[in-house]
Amino acid sequence: MSQLEYIKNENKKHSEIFKDGNLPLPPSRKIAVLACMDARLLVDQVLGLKIGEAHIIRNAGGIATDDAIRSLIISHELLGTKEIIVVNHTNCSMVTFKDEDLQKIISEKYNNDTTNIRFHAFESVEDNVKNQIKHIRSVPFLSEIISVSGFIYDVSTGNITQVS
Amino acid sequence: MSQLEYIKNENKKHSEIFKDGNLPLPPSRKIAVLACMDARLLVDQVLGLKIGEAHIIRNAGGIATDDAIRSLIISHELLGTKEIIVVNHTNCSMVTFKDEDLQKIISEKYNNDTTNIRFHAFESVEDNVKNQIKHIRSVPFLSEIISVSGFIYDVSTGNITQVS
Repeated sequence: MSQLEYIKNENKKHSEIFKDGNLPLPPSRKIAVLACMDARLLVDQVLGLKIGEAHIIRNAGGIATDDAIRSLIISHELLGTKEIIVVNHTNCSMVTFKDEDLQKIISEKYNNDTTNIRFHAFESVEDNVKNQIKHIRSVPFLSEIISVSGFIYDVSTGNITQVS
Repeated sequence: MSQLEYIKNENKKHSEIFKDGNLPLPPSRKIAVLACMDARLLVDQVLGLKIGEAHIIRNAGGIATDDAIRSLIISHELLGTKEIIVVNHTNCSMVTFKDEDLQKIISEKYNNDTTNIRFHAFESVEDNVKNQIKHIRSVPFLSEIISVSGFIYDVSTGNITQVS
């Protein structure tokens, strides 16, 4: 079975037991999560968030890029979220390379310059979480957010640890 | 109970029954999903994706921004994903405003110019999915991706419909 066939079959099963078709658009817990895209980090399950409760924004490294900030502004300004939670995790691929290395590999492979692509690789997960919190707190359009917290998820134990 | 206390309690329960601590870093289904951040779209459940199976990238509108492309390149080049699935949904807040309106509201509220922030509001969910697929397919560094598909999730029924 192809991946698309698998997904369509799984969605058929999902829709047959689906019961939450009348939820409002704004997240009921007024939370926006910014997390890494890692396949082992099932954000909803890890944080106990249920359908309709939180916006989930994800990218490689859980970085507060301009795009994540764009999403957070929409989340906050139009949909009323008030708390932001940054989630990174142990064993992250973002600590396994440097931007220059990946730029070089891809530039050579595709014979196309990638030195303008910043990949946001980092050395320390804890420092990365702290940097994202600091950056989010510095955005004037998010100044009414009441809390910005950060956690590291341990992919081997399922535990989160708050970064302070 | 505060939201953070709630999340910590929920995570404690999660970690007590956690059994998947030995999964490899690369996604086993070699899938990367690009989806909207909407709180009613539980991507894993909707597509039947389990822990360790797929990268999940999310932002407001499920837009293939430079940041999403950055994440997709890392996903594909370093972690071996081969198929990309774009997921948008019905009743999306991104069709309820125009970029200029939100720029004006925020600029006035914070007395700070936001006209350089592109929010990526759109008029048609179907066209938006098509545009993201088209853009992803045009990225030279993703030319070895074997398929880029798009779906619209119906938040009232739980069904996905493929966009072709």
